[in-house]
Amino acid sequence: MPAFEARADITHLPGILDPAGATVERALPALGYGNVSQVRIGKSIHLIIDAPDAATARAQVDEMCRRILANPVIEAYEIGLTELAR
Amino acid sequence: MPAFEARADITHLPGILDPAGATVERALPALGYGNVSQVRIGKSIHLIIDAPDAATARAQVDEMCRRILANPVIEAYEIGLTELAR
Repeated sequence: MPAFEARADITHLPGILDPAGATVERALPALGYGNVSQVRIGKSIHLIIDAPDAATARAQVDEMCRRILANPVIEAYEIGLTELAR
Repeated sequence: MPAFEARADITHLPGILDPAGATVERALPALGYGNVSQVRIGKSIHLIIDAPDAATARAQVDEMCRRILANPVIEAYEIGLTELAR
């Protein structure tokens, strides 16, 4: 069965506080990076999934994000998929 | 000055333990996802950066990752850059 490398990029929904991102943003100017704004820190989950085709793999990763990996009440996610050569 | 949206995808280097990823991976089969392996959980940092051009923006984000955002001893990072329309 083909294997796919999936990446789920999980970020806070707009309007949800992101204390880690805000702390980094406040620190950057003193470190010489005054031209940076809107720092947001989220999770990135990489995994390998066996599936008959890319659409099935993407649907399952989407379901896993919705059910387990992300919290859809406060988080948004974006999925990237690459087929692995066998 | 043009603005760019940058994303830094920070993952553990190969060989570095990832207990969070291992825990998720162990839990997935019981939840109906037995076809998933090599789960790795990292950070994803999104930010907006003002810079004269994409090369300068990318070089600064790379420097920030090296100095502050990632720990190059145990982490690898990958940078994505998109120019924002003004």
